Order: sequence, then structure tokens, then C-alpha cells
Amino acid sequence: MEFDLAHGEAVLERTPRVLRALLADLAPAWIDATEGPETWSPSVIAGHLIHAERADWIPRARIILAQGASRRFTPFDRLAQFRESQGKTLAELLEEFARLRAESLETLGGWRLSESQLALEGEHPAFGAVTLRQLLATWVAHDLGHVAQIARVMAKQYREAVGPWRAYLPILDR
Amino acid sequence: MEFDLAHGEAVLERTPRVLRALLADLAPAWIDATEGPETWSPSVIAGHLIHAERADWIPRARIILAQGASRRFTPFDRLAQFRESQGKTLAELLEEFARLRAESLETLGGWRLSESQLALEGEHPAFGAVTLRQLLATWVAHDLGHVAQIARVMAKQYREAVGPWRAYLPILDR
Repeated sequence: MEFDLAHGEAVLERTPRVLRALLADLAPAWIDATEGPETWSPSVIAGHLIHAERADWIPRARIILAQGASRRFTPFDRLAQFRESQGKTLAELLEEFARLRAESLETLGGWRLSESQLALEGEHPAFGAVTLRQLLATWVAHDLGHVAQIARVMAKQYREAVGPWRAYLPILDR
Repeated sequence: MEFDLAHGEAVLERTPRVLRALLADLAPAWIDATEGPETWSPSVIAGHLIHAERADWIPRARIILAQGASRRFTPFDRLAQFRESQGKTLAELLEEFARLRAESLETLGGWRLSESQLALEGEHPAFGAVTLRQLLATWVAHDLGHVAQIARVMAKQYREAVGPWRAYLPILDR
């Protein structure tokens, strides 16, 4: 499927509601659960999405749209949330994410991007030339990947509890 | 993590809202998308969850609780939704699922299950003795597995559109 701006925005605007529906008011046993050492809990993932909203999608899109002398993106800090989420409850993180996402979508919509703008390029620190269209498609797929991850982390908490049904639930061993 | 009835119910009651938040009013390009031949779209998955609500969880729990002469479960039809969902819109499926889930949770809550009831056994057609506790844990993990599947199916539609970012998005090749 080709990237379509309206289709992409429809997913992006849903993500804060999806996270709320999945996580709001759940017990710590769920929201702080992980898949083992060095893996992320639903709370950590919410913090990561907040950092991406601040440091990744819109800032990188601005670099591409400006077409300045340097179009190289600042490397993204995948661990920023361990610092930035300190002292915040999940309810606060979900609210912060919803607010930042709404702002991002307002900015994105305000640009009224043309096909030729979507084809403009920036420079990714690891793999070089990327287009604005690819960046926006990645934003959508990244949201969905983390929704799937949250559901998987939660499901895995019952890996033993399901007994022999484990054989029918591939998500428990992914 | 051990299965805990209140924790499990908290997830089960959220699933209809999660599906609505993810899917309501999305374009057919998303809700009818699949991972290829013989794989399921978000709409098909919604139909499958409806059939499980009717034919799996509560009916099997009743068989276990009755402790009758035969405690063998009726085999579950994994393809029933292709017949039962015909002519229904996704909005109708989401509403039907929410209604059935609410009824299931009312039934489950009304039983006020004790630890000894949770340890009662039924007979799964494929792998024999299973406990009510395992059945209920499976119900929760099954919900979460399908939420993850829906997000994955949607993400995969942008497998090519993300360009080189595909290397950073393992969900696109899962």
C-alpha cells in the first residue's frame, strides 16, 4: 500500500485513544510489566512515544521541508524516557502524549503538503537519504508497532498461566 | 505472573474500547487489509472475537463449572466469522462484540468464582485436561494477541512505504 496522508493521519490521531483504552487505570502489574531484563513496559513505551513526538517526527519533517544546507537529522535517543518520565504517573504520560500528538497533527495538517514536498529528502544519520513520505509512513508504522508491543508485553505475563493453550498463542513466545 | 481474576477482567472489559479506538471509522484500506492470502484483516478478527464470545469462553466455563459426566469442549470453529460476519459493517461488528463482551463479563462476575472453582477441570478436544483458571487466562491472552495482530496487519501495509526504516521496524517482517 502506498503512503496516503489522510489514511496516515487517521491512524496517528487514534493512537492516544488506543493507549488510553488499553492502559488507563490498569494495575501496576500490567503497566509496569516487561518481557524480561532490558525490555520495555507499557509505561516506558508511553514515555518513548512522548519523546518521539518532541524529538523525532515533526522536528525531522521541519528539517526536510526547510531544505537547508544541512538536512541531517539529530540522532534519536531511544532511552530518553528513562530520564524524562521520572516521577510521572501513567495517567500523566497518556495525557502528555495526547496533547503533544494533537499539536503535531495540527502542525502537519497546517502544512497542506503537496506531492512534491512529500518527495523532498533529508539525511538519516544511519542510512542516508530518506523522503518526507517515508518519514511520515514510518511515524504511522512506529505507532502501530508499539501498540502491538504493549499488547504482546501484557499477553506474555500469562505465558505460564494459560497452561497447554500456550501452543495456540504464538504471541506468548514471540 | 499468576492469573488474577480482577486483573484479567480489567483487560477483558477494555478490549471492545481498544478495538473501537483503533478501528472505528477507518477507511477500508485499513480495516480490510491482510498480511497476504489466507490471513485475517482487522474486520475478520473482529468477527472471530464475536464468535469466540458466543462459542468459546463462557460456554466452556459453564461446562467446567457444571462438572457433568462429559466435560469435553465442543471444538472451536476458527473460520465461523467468514460465514457469520457476512453483510455486517465493521461498526456493527464492533457494537455486537461490545454487547456480547459486556454480557460475558456480567455472567463471569455473577459467578463470584472461588479458588477451588478456578481449579476445576474440563477436557480440551486437542490437549486434554485444562483448568478454569487456564481458560480465563487464555481468554485474556487471546484478546491481547488479536489486538497485537490488528496493529501488525495495519503496520505491514507500510512495509515498502517506510523505505530504509524497515530495518528499524521488526513488526513489518514478523
